[in-house]
Amino acid sequence: MTKPDTQWQELQTRWQELADLGGIDALLGWDQSTYMPKQAAAGRSRQQALVATLSHARATDPAYGKLLEKAEKRSDLSPEQTRMLQLARKRFEESARLPASFVAEWSQHGGDSYSAWTQARPANDFARMQPILEKTLDLSLQAASYFPEFADPMDYFIDQSDEGMSAAQIDAVFAELRTALVPLIDAVAQAEKPRTDFLARHFPADQQLKFGEAVIRDYGYDFTQGRQDLTHHPFMTRLGNHDTRITTRVRENDPTDALYSTLHESGHAMYEQGVAAEYLGTPLGGGVSSGVHESQSRLWENLVGRSEAFWQAYFGKFCDAFPEQLKDVSADEMYRASNTVSRSLIRTDADELTYNLHVITRYKLERQMLSGQLAIRDLPEAWHAAYEQSLGLRAPSDVDGVLQDVHWYFGTIGGAFQGYTLGNVLSAQFYAAAEAANPGLSADIARAEFGRLHGWLRENVYRHGSRFTPGELVRRATGQPMTAAPYLKYLREKYGRLYGVSVSI
Amino acid sequence: MTKPDTQWQELQTRWQELADLGGIDALLGWDQSTYMPKQAAAGRSRQQALVATLSHARATDPAYGKLLEKAEKRSDLSPEQTRMLQLARKRFEESARLPASFVAEWSQHGGDSYSAWTQARPANDFARMQPILEKTLDLSLQAASYFPEFADPMDYFIDQSDEGMSAAQIDAVFAELRTALVPLIDAVAQAEKPRTDFLARHFPADQQLKFGEAVIRDYGYDFTQGRQDLTHHPFMTRLGNHDTRITTRVRENDPTDALYSTLHESGHAMYEQGVAAEYLGTPLGGGVSSGVHESQSRLWENLVGRSEAFWQAYFGKFCDAFPEQLKDVSADEMYRASNTVSRSLIRTDADELTYNLHVITRYKLERQMLSGQLAIRDLPEAWHAAYEQSLGLRAPSDVDGVLQDVHWYFGTIGGAFQGYTLGNVLSAQFYAAAEAANPGLSADIARAEFGRLHGWLRENVYRHGSRFTPGELVRRATGQPMTAAPYLKYLREKYGRLYGVSVSI
Repeated sequence: MTKPDTQWQELQTRWQELADLGGIDALLGWDQSTYMPKQAAAGRSRQQALVATLSHARATDPAYGKLLEKAEKRSDLSPEQTRMLQLARKRFEESARLPASFVAEWSQHGGDSYSAWTQARPANDFARMQPILEKTLDLSLQAASYFPEFADPMDYFIDQSDEGMSAAQIDAVFAELRTALVPLIDAVAQAEKPRTDFLARHFPADQQLKFGEAVIRDYGYDFTQGRQDLTHHPFMTRLGNHDTRITTRVRENDPTDALYSTLHESGHAMYEQGVAAEYLGTPLGGGVSSGVHESQSRLWENLVGRSEAFWQAYFGKFCDAFPEQLKDVSADEMYRASNTVSRSLIRTDADELTYNLHVITRYKLERQMLSGQLAIRDLPEAWHAAYEQSLGLRAPSDVDGVLQDVHWYFGTIGGAFQGYTLGNVLSAQFYAAAEAANPGLSADIARAEFGRLHGWLRENVYRHGSRFTPGELVRRATGQPMTAAPYLKYLREKYGRLYGVSVSI
Repeated sequence: MTKPDTQWQELQTRWQELADLGGIDALLGWDQSTYMPKQAAAGRSRQQALVATLSHARATDPAYGKLLEKAEKRSDLSPEQTRMLQLARKRFEESARLPASFVAEWSQHGGDSYSAWTQARPANDFARMQPILEKTLDLSLQAASYFPEFADPMDYFIDQSDEGMSAAQIDAVFAELRTALVPLIDAVAQAEKPRTDFLARHFPADQQLKFGEAVIRDYGYDFTQGRQDLTHHPFMTRLGNHDTRITTRVRENDPTDALYSTLHESGHAMYEQGVAAEYLGTPLGGGVSSGVHESQSRLWENLVGRSEAFWQAYFGKFCDAFPEQLKDVSADEMYRASNTVSRSLIRTDADELTYNLHVITRYKLERQMLSGQLAIRDLPEAWHAAYEQSLGLRAPSDVDGVLQDVHWYFGTIGGAFQGYTLGNVLSAQFYAAAEAANPGLSADIARAEFGRLHGWLRENVYRHGSRFTPGELVRRATGQPMTAAPYLKYLREKYGRLYGVSVSI
């Protein structure tokens, strides 16, 4: 009999505890966004701050640090164990450098800020948020200041969500995308618009939710390990092992809103649900980066859900749910309506082509705020100016301007947005690799058959959790580093066909 | 300027943290019972065990013990502060004597047990629960063993939930009740039964929930500090300051089930919602005992909700909700149907008269298990035998026998039931005092006007939280110690009139 590896077991116990505290924090947040009564807000912020303090204490426990040190000296570790230790060390350093009092203040501020935003946004009251956001910026810069190895605070935040990437790299990818997308969007803007009148008919919420949930059940989202609820801003959250929930919102005069948010969040959730059981509760037990995570949500939302094959599979069922509303509509019209391109004000409503311009705008504003080039008091106007420049539009108020997205109001400015566009890029790269390995994949989709696609993703992406760096994962799964080529090819072909336009590279 | 009392502030910070951990634990439990996906059960138990461990560590922190000691030596404390310290000391001793590893094991076991019960009950599978319940009994006895000052383990558990009471006192009260109730139940059993056929009609769930929620809004339940959701077993839970939620269940062929569970839980919740703001987050910041708590739920459920005046106020609205179902029914018939007396198998369905026999049965079984006179393997048959003896009925299976109530399956045997009957007794005592101070109270009810009653309860019960011992609270509010006389008077008069029977004392 071999001696039990008590040293390693102790590490795993500590990792599981940290994961469980993360799950508890996620539950506090999920409840805050779904069912929590109004007057509970202040107490909830305090509870969240307490959990942050407790997590921080465990994550920075000197005894844990010593355990890590001892394990790092071992020469008998498997490659998985070595990666676990690398990630654990990275997180230990990240936690250990933040003083406990700072962590508590930051967390409390995040809860207070979110709560204020839920009131300030409907009231178009940026003035209320300005001092809060100023504190958010100060706290974000303070957090980054504990990591002087990152000359640019933005690099610190990017490395946190997209390990191994830098602002300089992202600047380059975003410039390449912008150069390619602007003429394509211009060309599509000249073309004839598809019919969309029927989308504005009345689609009762219950039926919408039922339809969306039936689709993601087909995709492979496991409702015995998750659920869907209603929130203002849709999200996916992991509350523990085998508990990965999604949320959506419903507009009764636009059935694509709830549907595509459900498909999107199901992609995030299937990634988490697919992580190998033996990684759960370890540093490998979750998606590896915001870019790879977003690639999975975008893949199921766009590459699958906005494809011609998807509507061949589902238009009949969609008509069963809404027979009156769709009696004069064809599957092809539904496909085209799901891919309407228009320069608009709201990121989450944006089509595949313009979406990246929304992200690039926010990413640039973040860079300017973090570098001190843009003061919070000037942010609302900077937002408007950026939209005029990139999309030719100006929001009538801050509601759809600087108050639009929740991200900054959770208490951090930095690194919140680039992952969306990295995800778009990677979604096409992964899909192309899946298709190369599984010829005829879109014919599967047209039969609502997702086994081969889900299987390839589970095998090449999901099960690995954080086993590999994002860069390694992409190379192993697709045979090459991240590249925008498959994404731009996908967009040019799809929108070329849909709108009869052609833009050369 | 006076010097800030930093010593006292430090105590308050610690109390607030303990309360917040309690709220987090309540959220984990609320979610487990309402929305948690099936496969999350094991992970949730582990999260609950972790919170129990963290709470235990804080509650037994030697530095906290020293703070208490220092404060106990002060001579400048207000009566409130003195009571806070008394309760804090009691809880400190209770926590400090339980080893951390035992607390973790007990909590983990409770979660596992609950989860197993949710499957074992529908499957009528006591065999599955037997070893779990054996461990529950062992753990319960082990917990009590850390308190040798209680010769009888039952006294330990009673003192935990009903401070200052003992099994001997409760035996005496229960004997008095049994002696009075058995002939009354016998007399009513001979009388003509009221009409109840219409209750078995189809009452759609949504309308039932809406009606019940409208009533408790009138009562004074504050939905900005709470909400109602569906669970298998209705309960009230406090998730934090200003967050007191209730749950119910709905039977579409019996509208009284959801209605009276809603009224019942609203009584618990209004008590918690009414605690003085300055007590929140301190040892005084919640209801004082299970008996006093139950008195508030029973008062709003029975003394108010099952009164003739209640149906005078609400029958019209009830008919608005269910016009077809009630077209041949009168307010008087509804009143009588709400007070049907029958010997039945299910505690939570029982009428006011037989309810106490259900409680006394469970209380006696608990005493026998804790004293070693009854083994878990013999519990199912002991349950059946006790029901035959006290109610003349035998459940067809364990589903409605020993698997009926969730309490023991949360992981503790002892002290779970006596509070229900103490609450019945106190509900009438409090109501009589409120009526003496507010003549014509039942005429208020007949107009759906609850301001005076809610105001009296807030002033004399709710706002005090745990400021006084249960005994003191009862004396201050009613002018005398706990007495069964008002309760027996209430039952004899009400059921005497309803059924035309008369039983002398």
